Amino acid sequence: MKTVLKNVTLLREYGFGDQSVCVTVDGHTIESITREMPDTTHAEVVDCKGNLLIPAFYNAHSHAAMTLFRGYGEDLPLQKWLNDRILPAEDRLTYRSAYVASKLAIAEMLRAGIVSFSDMYMFMDATAEAVLETGIKANLARCVVSFDPDIDMTQDYRTREALELAEKYHGAGEGRLKIDLSLHAEYTNVPRCCSYLAELARDRQMRMQIHLSETQKEQADCIRRHGKTPAQFFYDLGVFDVPTTAAHCVWVTDEDVDLLAKCKVFVAHNPVSNLKLGSGVMPLQKLLAKGVTVALGTDGAASNNRLDLFREMQTAAILHKGVQNDPALIAGEEIFRLATRNGALSQGRDDCGEVRVGMRADLLLIDRNSLHNMPCYDEIAMLLYSADSHDVLMTMVDGRILYQNGAYTSIDEERLRFECREVFSHYFD
Amino acid sequence: MKTVLKNVTLLREYGFGDQSVCVTVDGHTIESITREMPDTTHAEVVDCKGNLLIPAFYNAHSHAAMTLFRGYGEDLPLQKWLNDRILPAEDRLTYRSAYVASKLAIAEMLRAGIVSFSDMYMFMDATAEAVLETGIKANLARCVVSFDPDIDMTQDYRTREALELAEKYHGAGEGRLKIDLSLHAEYTNVPRCCSYLAELARDRQMRMQIHLSETQKEQADCIRRHGKTPAQFFYDLGVFDVPTTAAHCVWVTDEDVDLLAKCKVFVAHNPVSNLKLGSGVMPLQKLLAKGVTVALGTDGAASNNRLDLFREMQTAAILHKGVQNDPALIAGEEIFRLATRNGALSQGRDDCGEVRVGMRADLLLIDRNSLHNMPCYDEIAMLLYSADSHDVLMTMVDGRILYQNGAYTSIDEERLRFECREVFSHYFD
Repeated sequence: MKTVLKNVTLLREYGFGDQSVCVTVDGHTIESITREMPDTTHAEVVDCKGNLLIPAFYNAHSHAAMTLFRGYGEDLPLQKWLNDRILPAEDRLTYRSAYVASKLAIAEMLRAGIVSFSDMYMFMDATAEAVLETGIKANLARCVVSFDPDIDMTQDYRTREALELAEKYHGAGEGRLKIDLSLHAEYTNVPRCCSYLAELARDRQMRMQIHLSETQKEQADCIRRHGKTPAQFFYDLGVFDVPTTAAHCVWVTDEDVDLLAKCKVFVAHNPVSNLKLGSGVMPLQKLLAKGVTVALGTDGAASNNRLDLFREMQTAAILHKGVQNDPALIAGEEIFRLATRNGALSQGRDDCGEVRVGMRADLLLIDRNSLHNMPCYDEIAMLLYSADSHDVLMTMVDGRILYQNGAYTSIDEERLRFECREVFSHYFD
Repeated sequence: MKTVLKNVTLLREYGFGDQSVCVTVDGHTIESITREMPDTTHAEVVDCKGNLLIPAFYNAHSHAAMTLFRGYGEDLPLQKWLNDRILPAEDRLTYRSAYVASKLAIAEMLRAGIVSFSDMYMFMDATAEAVLETGIKANLARCVVSFDPDIDMTQDYRTREALELAEKYHGAGEGRLKIDLSLHAEYTNVPRCCSYLAELARDRQMRMQIHLSETQKEQADCIRRHGKTPAQFFYDLGVFDVPTTAAHCVWVTDEDVDLLAKCKVFVAHNPVSNLKLGSGVMPLQKLLAKGVTVALGTDGAASNNRLDLFREMQTAAILHKGVQNDPALIAGEEIFRLATRNGALSQGRDDCGEVRVGMRADLLLIDRNSLHNMPCYDEIAMLLYSADSHDVLMTMVDGRILYQNGAYTSIDEERLRFECREVFSHYFD
């Protein structure tokens, strides 16, 4: 099945200038980019009317089911928020509520141009089913915590769930679904558990998702506890021997940054969540300067409260200039890459994140005619500073259109609303 | 002419809980808020379907005509941006281009729920005509700069323009349009000019709009030049004797804050612009703690690039928590007040900015059913952290609906697009 996207404008870096082109998608892949109209026999033709076709977004850090807790417990000190609100609320999670909340998260992400998300949480089988049903892509991981230093890892139910998840779902949906492993964080895991999971990941060629140096307290407590930083802690236990995505990295030291660069750890930058939770400002420029591959994440809806990489791009693009008093800090193209190509790389999706022949057809069509995008002297500036998620006219995932002109092709929106009302209205009963 | 808004949900602070109410608007004013349906003879009835009716937004600092330069000259050092891009571009401004750009700005603002904006710039007669034509409200000021210390102010053409503007437009549109005076900034004005304009404002009971302590350089240069801070400079010249809105205030000292509080100077906080231009982070909490009335502004589209107070609210709500590492910093209700009631006060519109009987009917209807706003445990959290400008279902200005369900009642959108293309496509020829 072929799709020909005609009357397409590409970003300048693709070398077609302002010229209108045709992008032909065959199956999951971009087959050709041509100035002339290709053969359209047996092809669906979509007229893009001169709008901007860009690589789609990859959400490098999220907890989809936490849309359940959007707006629940705002503006509280971190420990109070976690202990009095989020942990008791999470204790009520069921397969059903996690499934509905995940589907809501996926609907929000698809409409905002996110084609794939990394997720570490509980009830991941529920999230996996929502992923397969909706056609989005995801790297899912059952999040592991451990508190007993003498833990027998062969008996740990969370690790067992994590492996069962991989058994059942890894590679499902023609490779759309990948199962990773996940250690929640240093402060929630004992060394024995970390090295065990690192070894499992190495043996089974799985990727790892972790939280790292999110708060100043986490960093300081770890140094007190182990005489080393969280980054050094995970490194020493072999975690960084496998491809790892470390979320947050707000309080990493210069030595930590060198370590992350050396080990090719992917960093998920979550600027909105880091600000809202009072965690601080990640040293983005320092990480980029050392060659770390940084991607963007939304974190969960409880701490954001949107799943929208336009917001993260805009925040990342202005925040670091502001706090470092340098309006020329970090080129716009580089910020855009965090949300696109770098996100794909952080998920081990090396054939994704660019509009090039042979790459996966993960594509967004962006409305250039919104009043708030006029005039447009520079498409990257438009994408970073004026566009928003409502400018997404079409989201294509692996060659399949999942959202177009305000409607989903794989999600029954009214049914989703009904299911949400059902779940949300009784959740805290 | 009466309008009855039925099936309305109000914010909790108005004391109706979750109950649905009717809001009756008579002429420009909120006549009643009732649980029962009022007499609807000769009234237009709008079914709000349980959505949220909130006070509208007041943009306390902007340069509407600068939508012309949206995305023009991004990510440059401040002086290079100003000298190589913005100043030469402004030199090409005409009445026609300023008029069209102002109308584009107004369309963007109305759709985002902004019912009134403060503006200091050039070609303000063009902006005034756009204001009167579209039905929005504004405080407009011809921006004055002066560089000759011996200037004869009676001969200054900018001041003459400022006064002519007041003569022609102050109070026009049944009071919707107010004309203020404006000194661009300390670094662009000589003392003689400042004291002259302060006296004019005092004599004619006009308000004043200024830029204040936007950058560290401005603050340091002023101290070097005058041996005092910009706030002290303006104070000493009598500027703060008149109701003044000072935009930015990023680099104010503790003494400056005390002075602003003592003189009841209104502060326009422009967090997005301050970050994007690398200016820094205004000490919001310090200003609020000292009792300064802070409002929110977008600044111009060249440094933002949106005219959207949802963005400013969200940025203000998370930024200060983030940089001060305190998630409990500044209550959500207080941030919301910056964009609503405080904005109205900064414009001398004391009967605006709250949904109460006797107040001006400046009202927004907000969609509670967007997927990204579900679930909603707390309306203020929804407005600050998850809602966006596309959730505005209706914008009412002084009792008149100017935007509803995606359409303008006073702006011909296709004609505006045509005029924009015409102006933008030849602007830099």
